[in-house]
Amino acid sequence: MIRVGILGATGYTALELIKLLLRHPEVEITVATSRQEGNPHIAAVHPSLAGRLDLRLEDLGPVAVASRAQCIFSCLPHCASATVAPQLLAAGARVIDFSADYRLDDAETYATWYNEKHPDAERLGKVVYGLPELFGEQIPDAQLVANPGCYPTSAILALAPFLKQGLVDPSTLIIDAKSGVSGAGRTPKLTTLYPECNESVSAYSVGRHRHTPEIEQILGRATGQKVNIIFTPHLMPMDRGILSTIYASPTRELQENELLPVLREFYQDEPFVRIVEHLPASKDVSGTNFCDITARLVRGKLVLISCVDNLIKGASGAAVQNFNLMYGFPETTALY
Amino acid sequence: MIRVGILGATGYTALELIKLLLRHPEVEITVATSRQEGNPHIAAVHPSLAGRLDLRLEDLGPVAVASRAQCIFSCLPHCASATVAPQLLAAGARVIDFSADYRLDDAETYATWYNEKHPDAERLGKVVYGLPELFGEQIPDAQLVANPGCYPTSAILALAPFLKQGLVDPSTLIIDAKSGVSGAGRTPKLTTLYPECNESVSAYSVGRHRHTPEIEQILGRATGQKVNIIFTPHLMPMDRGILSTIYASPTRELQENELLPVLREFYQDEPFVRIVEHLPASKDVSGTNFCDITARLVRGKLVLISCVDNLIKGASGAAVQNFNLMYGFPETTALY
Amino acid sequence: MIRVGILGATGYTALELIKLLLRHPEVEITVATSRQEGNPHIAAVHPSLAGRLDLRLEDLGPVAVASRAQCIFSCLPHCASATVAPQLLAAGARVIDFSADYRLDDAETYATWYNEKHPDAERLGKVVYGLPELFGEQIPDAQLVANPGCYPTSAILALAPFLKQGLVDPSTLIIDAKSGVSGAGRTPKLTTLYPECNESVSAYSVGRHRHTPEIEQILGRATGQKVNIIFTPHLMPMDRGILSTIYASPTRELQENELLPVLREFYQDEPFVRIVEHLPASKDVSGTNFCDITARLVRGKLVLISCVDNLIKGASGAAVQNFNLMYGFPETTALY
Amino acid sequence: MIRVGILGATGYTALELIKLLLRHPEVEITVATSRQEGNPHIAAVHPSLAGRLDLRLEDLGPVAVASRAQCIFSCLPHCASATVAPQLLAAGARVIDFSADYRLDDAETYATWYNEKHPDAERLGKVVYGLPELFGEQIPDAQLVANPGCYPTSAILALAPFLKQGLVDPSTLIIDAKSGVSGAGRTPKLTTLYPECNESVSAYSVGRHRHTPEIEQILGRATGQKVNIIFTPHLMPMDRGILSTIYASPTRELQENELLPVLREFYQDEPFVRIVEHLPASKDVSGTNFCDITARLVRGKLVLISCVDNLIKGASGAAVQNFNLMYGFPETTALY
Repeated sequence: MIRVGILGATGYTALELIKLLLRHPEVEITVATSRQEGNPHIAAVHPSLAGRLDLRLEDLGPVAVASRAQCIFSCLPHCASATVAPQLLAAGARVIDFSADYRLDDAETYATWYNEKHPDAERLGKVVYGLPELFGEQIPDAQLVANPGCYPTSAILALAPFLKQGLVDPSTLIIDAKSGVSGAGRTPKLTTLYPECNESVSAYSVGRHRHTPEIEQILGRATGQKVNIIFTPHLMPMDRGILSTIYASPTRELQENELLPVLREFYQDEPFVRIVEHLPASKDVSGTNFCDITARLVRGKLVLISCVDNLIKGASGAAVQNFNLMYGFPETTALY
Repeated sequence: MIRVGILGATGYTALELIKLLLRHPEVEITVATSRQEGNPHIAAVHPSLAGRLDLRLEDLGPVAVASRAQCIFSCLPHCASATVAPQLLAAGARVIDFSADYRLDDAETYATWYNEKHPDAERLGKVVYGLPELFGEQIPDAQLVANPGCYPTSAILALAPFLKQGLVDPSTLIIDAKSGVSGAGRTPKLTTLYPECNESVSAYSVGRHRHTPEIEQILGRATGQKVNIIFTPHLMPMDRGILSTIYASPTRELQENELLPVLREFYQDEPFVRIVEHLPASKDVSGTNFCDITARLVRGKLVLISCVDNLIKGASGAAVQNFNLMYGFPETTALY
Repeated sequence: MIRVGILGATGYTALELIKLLLRHPEVEITVATSRQEGNPHIAAVHPSLAGRLDLRLEDLGPVAVASRAQCIFSCLPHCASATVAPQLLAAGARVIDFSADYRLDDAETYATWYNEKHPDAERLGKVVYGLPELFGEQIPDAQLVANPGCYPTSAILALAPFLKQGLVDPSTLIIDAKSGVSGAGRTPKLTTLYPECNESVSAYSVGRHRHTPEIEQILGRATGQKVNIIFTPHLMPMDRGILSTIYASPTRELQENELLPVLREFYQDEPFVRIVEHLPASKDVSGTNFCDITARLVRGKLVLISCVDNLIKGASGAAVQNFNLMYGFPETTALY
Repeated sequence: MIRVGILGATGYTALELIKLLLRHPEVEITVATSRQEGNPHIAAVHPSLAGRLDLRLEDLGPVAVASRAQCIFSCLPHCASATVAPQLLAAGARVIDFSADYRLDDAETYATWYNEKHPDAERLGKVVYGLPELFGEQIPDAQLVANPGCYPTSAILALAPFLKQGLVDPSTLIIDAKSGVSGAGRTPKLTTLYPECNESVSAYSVGRHRHTPEIEQILGRATGQKVNIIFTPHLMPMDRGILSTIYASPTRELQENELLPVLREFYQDEPFVRIVEHLPASKDVSGTNFCDITARLVRGKLVLISCVDNLIKGASGAAVQNFNLMYGFPETTALY
């Protein structure tokens, strides 16, 4: 039984994480933190957990948390996460970080896109990126895992096989991604108020979304190529789900029937990537840790469609998958 | 051409009001206020008004506003509205107040339900309630009109005909109402964040909603009976629309075929109340100033279904209807 | 390992059932039927099952199905289910029936509300109603279980404790229920087309919904009283979830603080009924087998709020719960 | 007063058309057709029209319709429309055709994409395409107007100014479009059933959508260039609205501040195209005849965002705009 702790347990990813961990036969949630006053019961913050988990949220520092848990899932915002992670690691805990703090290769890129000096810069470039389908070998021994972003998961999984085989030009990639609103977090904001985003679709952060360098660097790391993307995220009127439509120029003339075999071969041993012939809907993977991918050739161009549940495979499910690999449990435990 | 002003122009009812007024051939919007800094252009706050209205929101006091407009629509919150209304009236403006401040009969009830000392208590009990279908004769000469609440509009219009004829027991009324989220306003709150209320329905303020005394007092005023209701509002995952399902015990045995005639006769000259045979959906009246009502007899009990668009007939459409009556324009101007 | 079969596997309840059964360590799904031509793969009908279950839908008769499975979940429509159930039982299979065919006490009531002659009338009145919280003792030995309706589950669980204690008048009950659209099934119809029911709420089948006699008879069976209800179902713009708002007249003056204890005591040993202090939202139980209930006293009247996921506790979760009891597995297996 | 008729009046575009025409001071709707039996009242088919229009739907042939109306709006499906249009025109009526039948240049392309022999092939290539912003001069004298498709409207309006100035390479265009479900029509289908498309986003008809040749040919007609697009439509969980995100390679290095001026100059006299600096949401134009467009430069590539209400500017609003031009009314009549 592994004792686990959760930092920043009031948001949507933390809620999904707890629901998954409650199904895990080898996990005991021993501590959860929040800065909310009065140590509220977890069920006061997440009514759906009533009767499921008897735990109060506490405003604790990293040392106290590490004394109560072996593995810490940090759902803190960027910058906050990398401020406490060193202390958690120093105290002997293993850390799965949901923030973007340890996903990038270097502090300069971080500063450029996050407008912050990185609090733990020397560790950058050495942290395992927790996408088991690409970096699975590095995860079992990791003390610290950077849990992937939701958009990057859907985009990287679709593109990596083609890039690795040199079948697409890495300088031409267009990722048009559509996400449910839960991806924007649980802090009340005008932009995610119900009547603002219901019955509406809009692009946001065009050319400036922070997942841009993550996708580029990780695809580079995985495939050894310099990757350049145009990434356009959109907000959809739905709770959860991401569908990425990806356009890439082939490096040679491709036939449509070559496409799915490339994907199938790459992911043949992966339990959570499904290569499908039909055009997948984000609902097909809703509530699951699956990534469904298909490919089409349209007028000579490669069109990839990839979808995940942003809260599961795009966050908490991936975290549990990483946890399973870190502790030697079957990869699908609590995820099927 | 009537010069009109709008106080508190950043919310959803103000937006709908402006859209309606832009269709009104006899209206010029000359001033709109907000406490937002920097006098933002109205289209910066409401992008759907781009190119439609060239106006900046100003942080102005009542005297300044009254100097620029003949008729003021106040979309201020309760208490704030009754603080400025006396000055607007004193300056010679006519006022249509969207808040609850002038809807109730007395300051005691106001204090009980709104937890505030009424800022203009002596006027209570003398203000016209702007439901033209019941108080239409009083509106043309009114200086100040209390624009009805959204839930009250749907409930009162359905019940008044039966109460007035003494066909239902006024002590037994149950109003189970369902509303879209725009009714909760445009201020970011956790409860109206998209992922909180999407894919969910919940009751709120059970037994304590502030529209309770409004429905009771206005039905009393209109029908001369002491009315007692159980009112249960619910939040629905939709932008706009209210559907009230109302249960009442008849005072004598009724036949189902008596029901619609009672309603039809009562509203025969009203352009915005539609008595329908089918079970109306809130969508049937979405974007319109209509109230659709039907009636059924279920095991001896009267069941009324009544729906309005909370932002139109439940707020801004009613305000324009009142405006038309106040200024002698055809009642349906800008509303059909 | 129990071999189970599913009749009528193309709908939403069958899909949810399969997802739950795939988590059950003691279940093997060996057969699933449909009248679709060409024996389509289950994943062609339910894309979310891709890679999860390698099974084709077959157009099989009851004898063939019973030869391959020990326990049959029938998701057939009413009348169809009671046509095949006798043969399944005769062949030695145990049957959990999702249809309404075996829920009522007598064939006359069935004929009145379902407009059909009951195909297996002599069995009526002797079949266990599969609501474990009320009839749990009868389930372990049952060959045939009538799986409860979705609306009845939410209503009966809230009302039974008060009726059993004689605290409410059984002749005055009003059940105003709100359901997501999945409750209307997967057959394309104008009324459940997306643009018809999105952004809309409407009542339907007012006074004529078929769950009316089910609620009355089962509450009667459970509490020994003659129960009379007014039941008004509403269609909400959401996939899943039912919230029932219930109004009942007490038989004596009640205090609000008496209410929750009545519920808590009644359900103290039940793993899937949560008595909560807050007003529950249907989302709190979405995707779960929980029924969340609270109670309020409003102007002397009892107001109960009860919610379930119509596809889980209102259908497939309840079926698995019944299955667990029938085969001696822990009640919560595959449901937590 | 122009007498107008509507063919195929049961769908969503016909409903929106009627609502707009009811606001038009110079229009009388004299006839509406449908193949539904029994000549249902229009309000039985569209409950939102109760009390607004007293008309029955009739199953009439083109000659009968032309005898009662001067201008016919055909909301018939493709192929059906071009079957009756010749007779309507021969009878002296003017026709605004909502179908795709007269939008393409040639019968071969029609046969390829619509799998039908064109019923009125000789007229192809000579019919005015009713996009007033590009072909406004041809509309006043037209007997027959091909009303544009919804996706084409959003895409063509955004791209035409840049193509016409030779600023983008016409062989590189990617149009990633997102549409509400009403675009799929009102005929019940599994794919547009509420629980199928709610809480989900999916691409459909990738590389094979019939609006592909329409966009290419019309952009070619308007700009004199051979245009080649990759068009990927997506279904969004919302009623109405289209947002197109368009990617194009510039023919020379562009600066971001050059982009909006190109659009503004092109549309400076157009009442229904709004060039905006912010990223528009589909909701900004919902219920209106506006097309909101903005432009960004992302890593050297032009990214255009364009949105319309698919039922208004993408269908019925455009039709009324065409009608206004055909009959010499102010272009914005009934549309502001």
